[in-house]
Amino acid sequence: MNVNVLTLFPDMFTPLQVSLLGRGQEDGKWKLNLVNFRDFSERPHKSVDDTPYGGGAGMVLQIMPIKAALESLENKGKVIITAPQGRTFNEQMAQDWSKEENLTFICGHFEGFDHRIYGLADEIVSIGDYVLTGGELPTMSMIDATVRLLPGILGNAMSPVEESFSDGLLEYPQYTRPADFEGQKVPDILLSGNHGKIDEWRHYQALKTTFLKRPDLLKGRELTKEEQQMLLDIKAESEQEQ
Amino acid sequence: MNVNVLTLFPDMFTPLQVSLLGRGQEDGKWKLNLVNFRDFSERPHKSVDDTPYGGGAGMVLQIMPIKAALESLENKGKVIITAPQGRTFNEQMAQDWSKEENLTFICGHFEGFDHRIYGLADEIVSIGDYVLTGGELPTMSMIDATVRLLPGILGNAMSPVEESFSDGLLEYPQYTRPADFEGQKVPDILLSGNHGKIDEWRHYQALKTTFLKRPDLLKGRELTKEEQQMLLDIKAESEQEQ
Repeated sequence: MNVNVLTLFPDMFTPLQVSLLGRGQEDGKWKLNLVNFRDFSERPHKSVDDTPYGGGAGMVLQIMPIKAALESLENKGKVIITAPQGRTFNEQMAQDWSKEENLTFICGHFEGFDHRIYGLADEIVSIGDYVLTGGELPTMSMIDATVRLLPGILGNAMSPVEESFSDGLLEYPQYTRPADFEGQKVPDILLSGNHGKIDEWRHYQALKTTFLKRPDLLKGRELTKEEQQMLLDIKAESEQEQ
Repeated sequence: MNVNVLTLFPDMFTPLQVSLLGRGQEDGKWKLNLVNFRDFSERPHKSVDDTPYGGGAGMVLQIMPIKAALESLENKGKVIITAPQGRTFNEQMAQDWSKEENLTFICGHFEGFDHRIYGLADEIVSIGDYVLTGGELPTMSMIDATVRLLPGILGNAMSPVEESFSDGLLEYPQYTRPADFEGQKVPDILLSGNHGKIDEWRHYQALKTTFLKRPDLLKGRELTKEEQQMLLDIKAESEQEQ
């Protein structure tokens, strides 16, 4: 996969150059192409922003350098911009994007975008209900979420199948050594060696955490007979605890 | 504000060292204290993870080095961990955190957390419904969203008051030069110089974008008389367009 990023701050992208994603680039599993769209400005001092029409604080990014930078790309593929009015990013979108050969992200930085820039994008995506100084961090998060799903990136580090969201449930609790930390013990069942029982416990715990913390994730889910029984038990259990 | 981060990848944090947030550190407006909790491992090769009890793929971070790293901090303040079962991060949380003197973030990295680690945190926060290779990127996003609200960080770059979410609405469209880009024109009103009309238009557009893209943000909002009339007009307008 080839990922292009249009940004004024290519130096910010170190998080994608180290650890799993950095190794993935060295191994040729994916490629990050950072393009500074300031290089495409035709104005003095390579300016890329200007004051807003109609007045107001702050500066607004101009469309010309961004359009020129886009047109310079060999393979732009799907073009993505982050903006609060966009569709909220989620795991399903990461999965869809991970099947693309090329992706291009446009990052703004503290200034607003000239509204016409949105017309250059195929998808407008929101990263959540909060404001950042720039599009770089959300763009890196979206790239990380997408690229980690490519074959050979995670290696044996972990399997995406066992994680939160990938099967629609939150993750079950994990434990490692020591079995007893200052009186806080690992649940006995995990030390039992009974793998059937352990799988069942984990399934129950995943369903329970989801029911208690994110019941919205269960909406529209087709529950198996086993899960329906588990949910009854979970409800009885949580009523008792109250 | 002093922000501590417990991480295995301190080198990833360059995005907070440049631009507005980097300048804010140089000016003494805030301080980033990166702590590699691998330094607190007492195991051979400074290991910090181990296999999960009960079996399964992947490794699980141990509680000991993280607890020791936390205890080494002079001022830890509120301790925050990212996890999918947490409360979803939003602008209100950034505003609350920006009033703290100290904050501490714990970053996992592709492995899971031993469940007992969550007990070390004051808040468990989810960054959204997607999975990343580590906690570093979401932690940087939360720090960015929080620190940019501190006095003197944004300077004249822009005013947080005019942005999306800060008044509960999405932003109105912004435009800058040229007034006509390949036939795409800036709305006449913004060139009129009539500031009363421009403010009204912007308010209407912000309400319209919010109504069309994120109607959930309007729930529970107390609409002024003016906004109620605007909403009627917006509904009539969008019915006509259909």
